[in-house]
Amino acid sequence: MPDLTPDEFRALGHLFVDAVADARAGIERHPVRDVVEPGTVRARFPREANEDPEPLAAFPSLVEAVTGDADTRWQHPGFHAFFPANASLTSLLGELLSGGAGAQGMLWSTSPACTEVEQAVTDQLARALGLDEAFTHDGGGGGSIQDSASSAALVALTAALHRAAPDPDSGWRVRGVTGRERVYVTAETHSSLAKAVRVAGLGSGGLRTVPCTPGSRAMDPAALADTLAADVAAGLVPVLVCATVGTTSTGSSDPVAALVTAARPYRAWVHVDAAWAGVAALCPEHRWVLDGVNPGPGPGVDSFCTDAHKWLLTAFDASLLWVRDARALPAALSITPAYLRDAHSDSGAVVDFRDWQVPLGRRFRALKLWAVLHGQGLSGLRSHLRGHVDLAAELAERIRGHDDLELACAPVLSLVCLRSRSGDAGTTALLERANADGRVLLTGTEVDGHPVVRVAFGGVTTGREHLDVVWDVLSARS
Amino acid sequence: MPDLTPDEFRALGHLFVDAVADARAGIERHPVRDVVEPGTVRARFPREANEDPEPLAAFPSLVEAVTGDADTRWQHPGFHAFFPANASLTSLLGELLSGGAGAQGMLWSTSPACTEVEQAVTDQLARALGLDEAFTHDGGGGGSIQDSASSAALVALTAALHRAAPDPDSGWRVRGVTGRERVYVTAETHSSLAKAVRVAGLGSGGLRTVPCTPGSRAMDPAALADTLAADVAAGLVPVLVCATVGTTSTGSSDPVAALVTAARPYRAWVHVDAAWAGVAALCPEHRWVLDGVNPGPGPGVDSFCTDAHKWLLTAFDASLLWVRDARALPAALSITPAYLRDAHSDSGAVVDFRDWQVPLGRRFRALKLWAVLHGQGLSGLRSHLRGHVDLAAELAERIRGHDDLELACAPVLSLVCLRSRSGDAGTTALLERANADGRVLLTGTEVDGHPVVRVAFGGVTTGREHLDVVWDVLSARS
Ligand SMILES: Cc1ncc(COP(=O)(O)O)c(C=O)c1O
Ligand SMILES: Cc1ncc(COP(=O)(O)O)c(C=O)c1O
Repeated sequence: MPDLTPDEFRALGHLFVDAVADARAGIERHPVRDVVEPGTVRARFPREANEDPEPLAAFPSLVEAVTGDADTRWQHPGFHAFFPANASLTSLLGELLSGGAGAQGMLWSTSPACTEVEQAVTDQLARALGLDEAFTHDGGGGGSIQDSASSAALVALTAALHRAAPDPDSGWRVRGVTGRERVYVTAETHSSLAKAVRVAGLGSGGLRTVPCTPGSRAMDPAALADTLAADVAAGLVPVLVCATVGTTSTGSSDPVAALVTAARPYRAWVHVDAAWAGVAALCPEHRWVLDGVNPGPGPGVDSFCTDAHKWLLTAFDASLLWVRDARALPAALSITPAYLRDAHSDSGAVVDFRDWQVPLGRRFRALKLWAVLHGQGLSGLRSHLRGHVDLAAELAERIRGHDDLELACAPVLSLVCLRSRSGDAGTTALLERANADGRVLLTGTEVDGHPVVRVAFGGVTTGREHLDVVWDVLSARS
Repeated sequence: MPDLTPDEFRALGHLFVDAVADARAGIERHPVRDVVEPGTVRARFPREANEDPEPLAAFPSLVEAVTGDADTRWQHPGFHAFFPANASLTSLLGELLSGGAGAQGMLWSTSPACTEVEQAVTDQLARALGLDEAFTHDGGGGGSIQDSASSAALVALTAALHRAAPDPDSGWRVRGVTGRERVYVTAETHSSLAKAVRVAGLGSGGLRTVPCTPGSRAMDPAALADTLAADVAAGLVPVLVCATVGTTSTGSSDPVAALVTAARPYRAWVHVDAAWAGVAALCPEHRWVLDGVNPGPGPGVDSFCTDAHKWLLTAFDASLLWVRDARALPAALSITPAYLRDAHSDSGAVVDFRDWQVPLGRRFRALKLWAVLHGQGLSGLRSHLRGHVDLAAELAERIRGHDDLELACAPVLSLVCLRSRSGDAGTTALLERANADGRVLLTGTEVDGHPVVRVAFGGVTTGREHLDVVWDVLSARS
């Protein structure tokens, strides 16, 4: 057989585990981001793949030789760019078991284990976050692990399109979109919503950018209500309102409860994109991120998404999507040819997660999330989150006391946005200088048309000493 | 920090590697599929996740206790259901490094290594398969690793919709679909195409099921030409023709070259779904799977998809999608807010793979494919494929010589479709009896409205002795 025997895998696996451990242990000897010319890595590959097997024991050093000076190190503790991508070593253990199982959980029957562990773990996590029972599989809704918040938005949109179409038989599934469907976002909403709207065939014309409350970066509920009323009067169909909790640029949040109230008369689906910030609900002091999400006093939202692969110690991909109605996604997405027909599926007693996503195949992603819960416990997750929130608070404090720097807005959780007091050119120069140092990586964005520097704490190994490095770099005189 | 230290990971990683090795070594002590009552696994979870960390060393045995009697074992050598999902141990080594790197390759600049290894490896593989240089990044097209053939079909469709819209400025990206777009498949096409059409907003009305040539399960090119002409005459817009090479039910193939010729006058995008069979092109004797795909003598197709995660030793997810025009997917899918703006992207000198897919984030999937190529070589891949083709040929031979069984159609590569000579009830009973045995798992499908039993060889460790087991089970008198 052209594969390793279990014993060969055992020996090589130990070697590869050591290579990962060594690389993580030595990561701070490298800059966060290598300076690379496009084409550098490709040029190191021969045109043709090797005809004969090559020793796998040499593979880690080959990878190192080919890519070791040409990477951006997301697991470096000085990585504060974008949002973190926590590939914790704990989660890699779970991933190893997932690969070992090699299960394909498209249907319940093709892997009851994959399906039910995903149900159980998302139910547990819903409770730990403080989501209402209505979002659990036990409670008639349910969670699923999607590859990304982008895909989660797309499938939520398909469910919304299905629900919004008047007649299930001749509706969206049969007739497609009509050109009258509208999706409501703000200028701060992540671009994945615009992408979902485009992929779903609505075109950018299907996207309504609702103004923010003056002086804020949060959707104005009155403006939403007006836009909805005007659209309906014009014969348009409100399909989905996306409320963001923790926007990508500045961490701002839309007023979920008020948006739900505005959307309700039109039966528009309310999706909450809390890709980054949602996990903070594990900490009681940050549970405001769920305001308006749960039913009672208000009616609550239809779907809630947060990425375990950003700030919850779980290696990509593990985006968590909860819906209030377990039938909503299958109603939109299920198609069953003969070769996928299954007695258990027909019985209605099981969940087939293929109907909750675009891909057919799916791996046992719940194992890595379970490993994280098991190995760190909720207390460990909370201290992970709190550590970074503390770093952000302290960085903000230092910025407030500094002559050349100022906060662009109040810090949110672990995200700090700042600028140079000297103006836009100074801010742009600040970002470039900081990143040229090599010990940190930050990204910029724009706020009200002006450049801003973002510091997004959240790396698995980012601690107080790394705050000092950021500060060193930011506060250095140019 | 609430994660393992590198040294803790080293020790635990060895344990987990051993657990995977042990599980694979002992897999034949289990049935391929456990008999499970829905809810069994969920019931073993406490309502709430553990508050405090639990020892990870105990995690593999916990997973075993919770799921060990409730799984369908895709890596069991007696698994011949659906199509295989090769999670080779070789690929798991690559996956381990990928998790270790924890890179996020959405943009070239967020991981030059992830991006360029993917370019290099898909270029190498294109050459090894015999795809024209036009499909390589070097040649102006390029390959990408998608999560699934389903997602590959969806993004190919978005590129086709974009190209088919008359004016890029007011076209599909702005106005969305019009209700006049049509996609052409057959009754044998995989349901992922119908799903892509639905998600893209065309509705099932956008799907044209073109008849097969009488007596075959292959799209009739004359019928396609007629349908296209009639649709265009009716003011409809042909967008995409999907040609399948190796259908899910029986392994039949559409006549790609003739379909390209029929589609050409209408500039419809031709996508080849060779999810399962395409990898066989690595073997010169099976290169017919590429007939019509490459330009010259005919014009060739626009995109070609085959799954490395089915029959090419690479753990899910690794669906390979090649396009002839590297600009086609970004033209359809790119959206760039301030926080994703990047000097290298703006330069046009690099590929940003986020624009080739729906998700924003993406992991370093090329490493597992590279590990497979490196560790097994093209010669190893060929012998893997040939081994299963031989098994199928031998099974077919035995069936031909058997009194109670008959082939439902000629075997294709490693897929054998059979039935009982006693009729439909006998065939259904045959499938049930075979699966009740526990040593094999087969799936059924329908051909011309009659039940058929499929035997899809392709497991990483499936060898001659497992053919004997299948035969034992199938040929036993009821
Ligand atoms: C608010 C928000 N939504 C969605 C996304 C997209 O995330 P993913 O890569 O999981 O699609 C991001 C990524 O940063 C985000 O910040
Ligand atoms: C011909 C064909 N196309 C597409 C698919 C879907 O595969 P995936 O799970 O990669 O989406 C399959 C799965 O069996 C298939 O056989």
